[in-house]
Order: sequence, then structure tokens, then C-alpha cells
Amino acid sequence: MPIDSSPSRPRGVLSPVVTPFDRDLKPDGERLARHCRWLLDNDVGLAVFGTNSEANSMSVAEKLALLDQLVAAGIPPARMMPGTGCCALTDSVELTRHAVRLGCGGVLMLPPFYYKGVSDDGLFRSYAEIIERVGDERLRVYLYHIPPVSQVSISLALIERLLKAYPGTIAGIKDSSGDWNNTQAMLERFQPQGFDVFAGSETFLLATLRGGGAGCISATANVNPAAIARLAGTWQQAEAEADQQQAALDAVRKVFQSMPMIPALKAAVAHYSGDASWGMVRPPLVPLTDAQIGALLSALEPTGFSMPGLRG
Amino acid sequence: MPIDSSPSRPRGVLSPVVTPFDRDLKPDGERLARHCRWLLDNDVGLAVFGTNSEANSMSVAEKLALLDQLVAAGIPPARMMPGTGCCALTDSVELTRHAVRLGCGGVLMLPPFYYKGVSDDGLFRSYAEIIERVGDERLRVYLYHIPPVSQVSISLALIERLLKAYPGTIAGIKDSSGDWNNTQAMLERFQPQGFDVFAGSETFLLATLRGGGAGCISATANVNPAAIARLAGTWQQAEAEADQQQAALDAVRKVFQSMPMIPALKAAVAHYSGDASWGMVRPPLVPLTDAQIGALLSALEPTGFSMPGLRG
Repeated sequence: MPIDSSPSRPRGVLSPVVTPFDRDLKPDGERLARHCRWLLDNDVGLAVFGTNSEANSMSVAEKLALLDQLVAAGIPPARMMPGTGCCALTDSVELTRHAVRLGCGGVLMLPPFYYKGVSDDGLFRSYAEIIERVGDERLRVYLYHIPPVSQVSISLALIERLLKAYPGTIAGIKDSSGDWNNTQAMLERFQPQGFDVFAGSETFLLATLRGGGAGCISATANVNPAAIARLAGTWQQAEAEADQQQAALDAVRKVFQSMPMIPALKAAVAHYSGDASWGMVRPPLVPLTDAQIGALLSALEPTGFSMPGLRG
Repeated sequence: MPIDSSPSRPRGVLSPVVTPFDRDLKPDGERLARHCRWLLDNDVGLAVFGTNSEANSMSVAEKLALLDQLVAAGIPPARMMPGTGCCALTDSVELTRHAVRLGCGGVLMLPPFYYKGVSDDGLFRSYAEIIERVGDERLRVYLYHIPPVSQVSISLALIERLLKAYPGTIAGIKDSSGDWNNTQAMLERFQPQGFDVFAGSETFLLATLRGGGAGCISATANVNPAAIARLAGTWQQAEAEADQQQAALDAVRKVFQSMPMIPALKAAVAHYSGDASWGMVRPPLVPLTDAQIGALLSALEPTGFSMPGLRG
């Protein structure tokens, strides 16, 4: 099987971009574009509509409109990997088709996640139907394995079957299992076939890169993009220096992980941008309390954390 | 708090009506209306767009169109309790608003089910936002507690809080926890306030009725409606006779539970209606194999199971 090494394939660090809502809980495309630009300036690609984007708390129509607004605002589609996997077949097809037509670099596709205990046959059927219905050879599907949230797993056997059936289309995976053994197995079995393995967070970034993987797609890249991207860009230069960078990333991540992640990311963006409305989240999430925000900022201080260039 | 005992309030047995798809996996409103009519003829109400309706495998637009088709086909909206709880706030609002405007007897509302481990505050915020945005005093919300599938629980504390905030609107619950202690606690604490407790299957129908509850909303009412409705209608007459009826219902349910439930329900409808296309399911589900269908029908035989009146 030929390895697709076209330069446009996403590599390095991507972020599931947090989605700003206004007071009425409507998504705000302009502020989203501004955050996307800041991430791109920090060498981080745009996995818009991920778990940390509250993508599943938005309707398909809202997501289609946001994608259009981002492209209209000049965000390069090739740097975007929108999440397009929904519970409903027809929703996934509609979103995926739109992303491909806009020229997105790939799509990150959750399995349908309402039913639990579904078979690999059923999941294969789901991905196959979407791929066939979209019917576009530009489509690049990155599978999204996040069992702690979706509660629906993408097994190694399923990946093998999908790769065999759609070798040019099944392009890689985001592994948010938190299980390094699983990431390692994917790196060994599938990365050599050009199936790009992204760790689900920067916790496993260095290990993934050393194992031949493509990089990471990480929530905290929303707030700490430059440092994470720097490790992805320099890890081969000096081993000790890379280990040190990894440890610094871990220290920042640990702070965010000690809080509800999405409200904490948004509280940080709100604080460092000076735009308090960033703190808004859609239900079923709740914003951090003032006490939690205080604790977050205090805990970040000793790590030297900042978000340069975010304000204005 | 006044108990709303208006005669239009749904009671007895309802079915999460299975949704027919054509060969192209498109929902088929005409065949759905025909199955709804058969259920009504057997004294079973219509919880369309439930778990067993593959509701979350359909887009909001598909569900809105089906609701309109059912009403246009003469299905009385007062007998419908459509599922309208989605992951996305805006989707839940749109579906719920439409159901209320059509005059549906109530809506069955899942909590947003993508994020796990969310707080009661977040779930309260979700239900409250939907209720406020729909803003219609005709709205009757039946909470949908199905932790084995949604993996998001509706706690007793949350019910209490919702009942206090929206006493006229929060009308009841479907308890599909499979945990009788939970159903019993709801019956004791909330049924006396006019909060109608429906068991999630006929397994607990008699116990629920004896505990003062409203009835059940059950998958297998799609295939065994008359017998289940008979128990709901006659349970007070003779205790021994009621126990016997319950045992007969359990025997049929046991057969369906030994298979993947939704494909098995549809295989039975296909077989007894003589319309093989009923066997179709949307991914991530898969239809029963011929061998499974054979095993299902053989296992049903000794129970005396049939679906009279279904064919034409």
C-alpha cells in the first residue's frame, strides 16, 4: 500500500479549538476565528469541533455555519480537521461532505456514540456508509478513539478492516484512550502503513513521536500551544532537552486536569485575553466559579504559564 | 402543589415505536404511521423517537419530518410522547418546540449524553434552558433515565430540584435503570405529587402499577402490545390473574432480550407483517442474520406469541 506523504497531511500538534458562545449561548464565529489565528500563529492546527470544542452540544447547522465563517475569515481549510462524527448517519454525512468540499485537511470522526456494546460490524458499517455516501477521494478520515467519553471503542481489528477497505481514505487516528499500550500497538501495526497516530494529549507527545507517530491533538494546546508545538518541532535535537520540555508541558497540563477541563480552558482564555465572555459554556457543562478560577490561576503561576499574544 | 389529573395525560402502556427505513436507510413515514395505528388499536401509546426507535441515529430534520407525516396521516398527537432530548441544546429546543406546537401529549427527554460525569447543576441547567426557551405552558416533560445506554443518570435530587422549579412542566419519568429500588424510590417520593412514573419495561409493569405508578414504556410493546396493555387495564381485578399475566409477558420479553433488542423487534415485525424491509436498521446496528431470525421465531413459538392484525 503506498504511503500518502503529501505535504498537506496534518502533522505535529492540533487543538480541539474551544468554541466561544455569547450570552445567549450562540456560537460566535468571529471570536472563534480570532482564537484559530492565534493557534496557527503558534504552529498549532485546528481540530475544530472536538470534544473540548463542545461540538456535540451544537447542532449540525451551527457547525456548518461556523465552518463557513472560519473559511470566510481567511482560516486556511487545509489546517482544519473538523470533528464530523455524530450519532446520526445523516448528520455525519452532511458535516463530512461540507468539510471535504471546503478543502479541510481531514476530518476527525467519532463513532456513533449513543448505543453501547455495538459490534465492530456495526461500527464498520457506520464508517463505510459515511465514506461511500460522501464519495469523494479527497476525504481523509481520522478515527477518534475516546472511550472514556464516547464509551464506544475503536478496536485494532476494526482499524485493520477499515484500512483494508478504504486504504486511501482512512488516514489516521486520535487515541484518547489514555492507554499507552493501545497507542503503542497502533504505532507498531498501522503507522508504517501511513496511518498517522496522534496521541490524545501532549502527555504522550514525546513517546508518540519517538514511536514514529504524527503528533498529538490536545485540549491544552488551546492554552499552551507554543510550548507543545516546540517539542513537536525540536524533539529530535537533544534527548535530555526533549525530556525536559515534556516535563514542563506535563506540569501545565496537570493544573488544567485538576479542574473540569473545558470550563478551565475557557476560563484561562477569558483571563489572558481580557475577554470575560470566553468563560461561557453550554449545558450540560457549567462555568468555573470565581473561586475555581482563582485556584486555577494560582496553580498556574509557579509553572510560568502565560498566553502571549492572546490579548488584542 | 396541585396534581394535574387532566384526562389527556398519558398513562398505561406506551411503546418506543420502531422506525422503518427503506433500502437507502431513509425513514419511511407511511410505514411508521401504519405501525402506530396498529399500536393504538392495541391500546398502546406512541413514544416515538425512543432508544428503540433508533431516534439518535436520525437527524433532527428527519424527526421533524416524521412527526409532521404522522400528524398528517391522522395519528392523534395527544397519544404521542416523542423523544426530544439530544446532545445539543439547540436540537432539543427545536424538536421539543415542534412537538408542543403539534399538540403532543408530552415529550420524553434524555439528558445530553455525550459528556460523562457531568454535575446535577449542569443537567439542571440543560433541562431549565430547554424549558425556558420552549416557553410554552402546554409543555409536559417526561425525564428519560436510561443509564445503561446514555451513561448519564438523572438523580432523585435532580428530579426534586426540577419539580420545584417547574412543577407544571416536569410531568414524570421513564425509569430504564433496570433497578427496582430506584423506581420504588421515585414512586414513593414523587408519584404522590403527580409526577408519573413509568417503568422502562413491562418487567416492572405490575410492580409499578401496584406502587401507584402510571404504567410502562417498553420496547417489546412494539410486538406484544395487546397483552401488555391488558395487564395495565386489568391488574386491579384479581391478584393471581395479574401475576399470571405478568409471567406470560416476562416469557415473551425474555426471548427478545436474548437477542440484540432493536434488530429482533424489527425482525419480528418484518416476519409477522410479511414486509421483509422492516428488518432494516441504521448503523451502528446490524440486522439479525437469517440464523438469528430462525432462532428468534423458534424461541417465541412455545410462548404462543403472535402479532394479530399486523398483516395488512
